[in-house]
Amino acid sequence: MEFVTFENVRAAAGRLGGIALRTPLLPFSENTGQPLWLKPESLQPIGSFKLRGAMNAIACLDAERRACGVIAYSSGNHAQAVAYAAKRYGVPAVIVMPDVAPRIKAEATRAYGAEVVEVPIGDQIAKAHALAAEHGLALIPPYDDGEVIAGQGTVGLEIVEDLPDVDVVLVPVSGGGLASGVGVAVKALRPQTQVIGIEPELAADTAEGLRLGQQVDWPVADRARTIADGLRAQPSELTFAHLRKVLDGMLTVSEDEIRAAVRVLARQARLIAEPSGAVTTAAYLFHSHELPPGKKVAIVSGGNIDPVLLTTLLT
Amino acid sequence: MEFVTFENVRAAAGRLGGIALRTPLLPFSENTGQPLWLKPESLQPIGSFKLRGAMNAIACLDAERRACGVIAYSSGNHAQAVAYAAKRYGVPAVIVMPDVAPRIKAEATRAYGAEVVEVPIGDQIAKAHALAAEHGLALIPPYDDGEVIAGQGTVGLEIVEDLPDVDVVLVPVSGGGLASGVGVAVKALRPQTQVIGIEPELAADTAEGLRLGQQVDWPVADRARTIADGLRAQPSELTFAHLRKVLDGMLTVSEDEIRAAVRVLARQARLIAEPSGAVTTAAYLFHSHELPPGKKVAIVSGGNIDPVLLTTLLT
Repeated sequence: MEFVTFENVRAAAGRLGGIALRTPLLPFSENTGQPLWLKPESLQPIGSFKLRGAMNAIACLDAERRACGVIAYSSGNHAQAVAYAAKRYGVPAVIVMPDVAPRIKAEATRAYGAEVVEVPIGDQIAKAHALAAEHGLALIPPYDDGEVIAGQGTVGLEIVEDLPDVDVVLVPVSGGGLASGVGVAVKALRPQTQVIGIEPELAADTAEGLRLGQQVDWPVADRARTIADGLRAQPSELTFAHLRKVLDGMLTVSEDEIRAAVRVLARQARLIAEPSGAVTTAAYLFHSHELPPGKKVAIVSGGNIDPVLLTTLLT
Repeated sequence: MEFVTFENVRAAAGRLGGIALRTPLLPFSENTGQPLWLKPESLQPIGSFKLRGAMNAIACLDAERRACGVIAYSSGNHAQAVAYAAKRYGVPAVIVMPDVAPRIKAEATRAYGAEVVEVPIGDQIAKAHALAAEHGLALIPPYDDGEVIAGQGTVGLEIVEDLPDVDVVLVPVSGGGLASGVGVAVKALRPQTQVIGIEPELAADTAEGLRLGQQVDWPVADRARTIADGLRAQPSELTFAHLRKVLDGMLTVSEDEIRAAVRVLARQARLIAEPSGAVTTAAYLFHSHELPPGKKVAIVSGGNIDPVLLTTLLT
């Protein structure tokens, strides 16, 4: 297995200049014993950090292969990331989605110029591989890929550049691409900084797996219970190996804590966060006694929340 | 009358480093004939650009005078700005508010450590002057002040630094401090860039005044009709003179357009904007044919909106 290196992350940062937004660190609670800054990836053009990994993976394809087009399976933020990145490169993109995905997601993806192929739920991965082979499209995985991980790692690079004495970085964990990349970057630049992964209690497979020292498999139906719809995936062998190496710990948050964190981010930071993006703030707000002391950064990974759900959480 | 110079703005920028957030330019609509970037001042620690002017004015006081404390009259974003800035300097702050102001605003101001004095509506200015004289406090005006204008001007400086070929800057106009400062900075750095002031139709005193070439006075009750509660003030002699000199035009937007812009900013840019902060986006969305062509920046001046109002606008 080949581990992503800090040099991979630094190279990705060079490719992302002028494409991914360099998100600022927002001081959230400066004058307490627990100073916190937010890293609002919700402000990326597609509303999520996923743009970084997709863009880097597409940039790393050889030009001839890239020109044939790219394909991805996703009904979430990765779909829009690949569609957006392909458009920036002027290459065709096909996104395979389950036909039960909300219509709004398919439309958002089409708006970036991608072709959306809808298939019965469960068939997406097979269909994507079949179409890739048939049409010579390059498959861009959501997290199980070194260049995707390196792209997401640029979030960590920017955090340490902007707050060189950061003590704790809180990062959401799902498939593990973001947490792997951030961990690689932060540990390379400042080994004493603690990188803590955050999961919903209802999808805490990684917390359990790291405790046991081996991957565990939670049933999809169990993981689907959390409101944090971006955190229902599980690490691959590649990302799990990275997480074992770079994370200093895991912490889980409840559904009520996630809902409250969405509300606090809206009211106090004027940020629209999706539940998956709010888990790190939930950890800060409700579990500070379980976190190492010092200057903390919470990665707000995305902001694509249904407006109706947002209204129910705001007041 | 002494006009604010670009050197004043540059000096203010030096004082604000590490205190006001350097807000990023967010690409909102890149691939159209009308590319737009947002300048989200809603992300400042107090949720508004007002921090810049208040901080610069307090920084410019001589140290002995500053140590005696500062005072301001406001029930809006300027109150929190002065309270926050005073706290950063470790000096006392008194804010005079009308006793009809929402309790939440007084509490937010007290949370920054300021003393809040509540008086019958209409008495704020006289009370602030009386307390200033009695206790030797320095009065920090919301916009009728060269150093406040210079501080707000740093928004314009950052815009041109980050997008050197910007063609049009859209800026909300109320008391005129922000528009004056932004105009001074933008015109100094890039004279051909058009700076357009935006007002609600229901509080369009400045649009009318600039058309007539002299200040006009709209009754408070008329101006109070707009949902954009931060845009109900009128320029002073000082700011009106600046606006005549630096603005290339004015444009007004309707209440429905403002409401729609708040919704679009939430859904498409994941930003929580207050109605006053959304007028520039409203101008872009609904009046693009009346705007000069080219690369545009809309200043989203603040994000302090009542959560109940926000929920009614979201869906």
